[in-house]
Amino acid sequence: MDGAMIARVVRSAITRVSTGIADQEEPTPPRVAMVVDVSDANFIGGFIPAIVEKQKHPYSRPEFLYFTEEETALSADQSVRPVICPKQPDKMPLYAGYAEVVNAGKTVENEDQACAKVLSLMQQGSEAEEAAEVGNSRSQTTDRRPSDEDALMGIELESSTDESANGQCRAEAVLFGIYDGHAGSGAALMAAKCLHEHVKSRLSEVLEALLQLDRQESYVLARRRSESAYSITGSEGSNPGSLPRITSESLVIGALEAAFVDMDEQIAEEKQHWKIPGGCATICVLVILGKIYVANAGDCRAILATAGETRPMSGDHTPATERKRLQAMAFRHPELIGASFSRLEYSRCLAKKDLRRKVLYRDWFMDGWASKTVRETDLRPPMISDRLRKKRLLHTIGVSRGLGDHHLLTADDKLAIKPFLSPVPEVQVLAIRSLLSVTSLDVVIVASDGLWDVLTNEDAARIVRSALSSSDEADPSRYTQAAQELVAAARGNPGDHYRWTMNVGGPASTDDITAFVIPLKHALAPLQNGDDEDDDLLSLDS
Amino acid sequence: MDGAMIARVVRSAITRVSTGIADQEEPTPPRVAMVVDVSDANFIGGFIPAIVEKQKHPYSRPEFLYFTEEETALSADQSVRPVICPKQPDKMPLYAGYAEVVNAGKTVENEDQACAKVLSLMQQGSEAEEAAEVGNSRSQTTDRRPSDEDALMGIELESSTDESANGQCRAEAVLFGIYDGHAGSGAALMAAKCLHEHVKSRLSEVLEALLQLDRQESYVLARRRSESAYSITGSEGSNPGSLPRITSESLVIGALEAAFVDMDEQIAEEKQHWKIPGGCATICVLVILGKIYVANAGDCRAILATAGETRPMSGDHTPATERKRLQAMAFRHPELIGASFSRLEYSRCLAKKDLRRKVLYRDWFMDGWASKTVRETDLRPPMISDRLRKKRLLHTIGVSRGLGDHHLLTADDKLAIKPFLSPVPEVQVLAIRSLLSVTSLDVVIVASDGLWDVLTNEDAARIVRSALSSSDEADPSRYTQAAQELVAAARGNPGDHYRWTMNVGGPASTDDITAFVIPLKHALAPLQNGDDEDDDLLSLDS
Repeated sequence: MDGAMIARVVRSAITRVSTGIADQEEPTPPRVAMVVDVSDANFIGGFIPAIVEKQKHPYSRPEFLYFTEEETALSADQSVRPVICPKQPDKMPLYAGYAEVVNAGKTVENEDQACAKVLSLMQQGSEAEEAAEVGNSRSQTTDRRPSDEDALMGIELESSTDESANGQCRAEAVLFGIYDGHAGSGAALMAAKCLHEHVKSRLSEVLEALLQLDRQESYVLARRRSESAYSITGSEGSNPGSLPRITSESLVIGALEAAFVDMDEQIAEEKQHWKIPGGCATICVLVILGKIYVANAGDCRAILATAGETRPMSGDHTPATERKRLQAMAFRHPELIGASFSRLEYSRCLAKKDLRRKVLYRDWFMDGWASKTVRETDLRPPMISDRLRKKRLLHTIGVSRGLGDHHLLTADDKLAIKPFLSPVPEVQVLAIRSLLSVTSLDVVIVASDGLWDVLTNEDAARIVRSALSSSDEADPSRYTQAAQELVAAARGNPGDHYRWTMNVGGPASTDDITAFVIPLKHALAPLQNGDDEDDDLLSLDS
Repeated sequence: MDGAMIARVVRSAITRVSTGIADQEEPTPPRVAMVVDVSDANFIGGFIPAIVEKQKHPYSRPEFLYFTEEETALSADQSVRPVICPKQPDKMPLYAGYAEVVNAGKTVENEDQACAKVLSLMQQGSEAEEAAEVGNSRSQTTDRRPSDEDALMGIELESSTDESANGQCRAEAVLFGIYDGHAGSGAALMAAKCLHEHVKSRLSEVLEALLQLDRQESYVLARRRSESAYSITGSEGSNPGSLPRITSESLVIGALEAAFVDMDEQIAEEKQHWKIPGGCATICVLVILGKIYVANAGDCRAILATAGETRPMSGDHTPATERKRLQAMAFRHPELIGASFSRLEYSRCLAKKDLRRKVLYRDWFMDGWASKTVRETDLRPPMISDRLRKKRLLHTIGVSRGLGDHHLLTADDKLAIKPFLSPVPEVQVLAIRSLLSVTSLDVVIVASDGLWDVLTNEDAARIVRSALSSSDEADPSRYTQAAQELVAAARGNPGDHYRWTMNVGGPASTDDITAFVIPLKHALAPLQNGDDEDDDLLSLDS
């Protein structure tokens, strides 16, 4: 099925019954069921102009599954919805668990994508970098090192490191990503194939400073611990002059922020030449130097699940949670909503009979509510309103950050959606060593909204804890088994009329569902991932 | 001294020695001292075009001081810097303490202003309000009540209240405000005289709903307490359909947010006809229905100081704390900084020799730092930079929210500053009853940045605690005495060359300093303020 056909199917998903793979094997599902399915989508029927027709990345499942075409086709059976796992869980970076399941007919393909990559980082000395920039004038610049990198941070760094003695320094990191596509799978496919390269490139640019700062911070931390009975020497927080204090964490955060924006720009550029339909909510979990960074743009979610606590590691970005930002955009650029929508949020639905009555409202700058008299312009639909069980922006999209969507327009008035969407992630950090203890039961769970629509954070943590408790400590597939149970719980069991029901009762998720279960224990020693010495698995026990 | 002269004096404050009252009595202070003084200001020399010359509100000190012209002149003695307090502390709303001191020569007048007002709130029934709107068609609308106000909140309210039986409901609130002016005292004077009217008007508009919700929430809270041994009945958080849940707090927050924006618009409008020089950082403390609301726009600050804890009740808004918002503005509207400034923040100062070298930077979307190669445009001064010990926007202003400043331009390029400034307050709430206990030692301290520049939150809390502990419980002036000690500590003692030194050593504040000390105990029973029955003071003891 080519990209154009995918787009056509999506465009008509609300009014037409499903087509494609499912249809060829199953009777046409009733229209009511389709509407229920669609209600879980982030996108319900904007207009996507066809600019070019060639698709750079054909539809596929994540690389680490090593699927044949036949297996890919089987994974897409929307009546069975098999829970898919990696064939070789012991080859997954950090022994992370993974599972996915296709939607129940909302779209013909699984629009979730994923990646799991070991990033081998390398920075050449700044001399070399500058030489590349300066070209023949290199000889004029050689007297700058090593003070250059040092001076830029306003912090006294060690003059040189072992790694940079030969002009290079190296480190390894691991990146897990989930890309929940909508309105086509092009952006999600491309992000799954390219975002980690942007992260790698941005991290490599600052690697020398990152490693030096990390070593320096560890030293200060260790010294402070050994001196804890005495007063602090003030070495931390001392900020000579007014130069900003830069930490190793802030360099990783900056790399992730810049990489997301780089990725979105790459999609925009390549859209000139390739067909890259749709957009995608994007979440990345980066493991580097004993810390876990979660960068999120959209409504995927990561949580920390340890024996003692369940804690969110990301916040959802939806028209509900980002109301003020979206309204502010419409306030500064009223042409973005034209005369089709009202910028305000109201305390109730307004109709003609409400004219000149009082209503409570919130504008872009308000957390609270105030009163106003209803005028004609207030009778326009609000720019953020409830459609099919979700708050949606301009009647179209239920997620407010992510990558892609550059050509998405509203169905009626062809208003551009992209100016409202942000590719900027929010980044949260967990220093694994800051936890009191780390056991093999402690994990970060990352999943697309297909899972979180039907499971609470506590539900998910409980399912994973239960699965891990009953599995063999030495089994490298135990985290994949946990991910499998998690996804199976959210998918539930098939019932009549394409409804799926959870084991505990109530409707299950009919959306695409994707989940990683990342063990903290192995994240402490990322360089040991993926090798065949199973004994290492046990020797890491704390 | 007329407004034009004030503006002229401010414009030349950096390069000329001080003029005006202080000069007539004292020898000219040395130029070095002047620079130190100016470094505490929020404004260091933009351009203020004179549009009109008439000043609506002539310079004065706060109403509640009841000062004669002679007393006002004495209060402005910049060599003595007397600490000024209300003559009748027992007439202050809630027996709140107040003290102020003029700057050491930075400007010829005290640019801080303050207000303390009892607001008598009254809402006519929505029938009457609508009648005023609808005019002659009133008879068509009378069948709407009382369901109108009820329905607008999506919450089942009591059908009617005692207060609204005669079409009116009433309540009292108390508002304290500090308005820290810069580049002239016009905006601060006008805000001190008008902002409380906007707050009163916005609160009155929602008063009926506010009182009903407050009663309903108190009932639920009381019932939940009495049922605490049993399971919660789910009466809280139940949100029929997807209508937003509106609380009494959210109505007060909305009233404050809207009132600040109303006030800023009023200044803009009246600037067409009156001379209203300058702008002002603004903080308001509103006491209503047993809760304290702090609305802050700028770098004034409120803290809660109880026996057990010291907690900030507001966040400062400066170019340093609002970097991302200000950079985002320049990103979306590059013409606002033109070719005069660079949008980025850099890890170090850049000079010509840095061209093509690497530097760390942060852009509008970044909490972290990334690396880039320095280009010609990076050599422009950053839009937020250090000038005279403060981060300043476009080399001009050290505060990023507040009222006024509509005509403020940069000195060199005449770039408008106002588009970057926001009149929107951030509101924090304290339910007094949520504290474990309330004694007469528990207060909210509010002060202009003149105080916070030299005292930490803990310093201020300690000084007030100490003053209150040694004062007589029945003395209605005890909170004013505490405010006086607080302001005196920040002002310190005069030394050579117009330097002022704190008792504990180190430079004291040479800025205008204003502080309220608001007792929580009396805030629980706001209707009793200002009466002459001193016994009430004791009977409120908890």
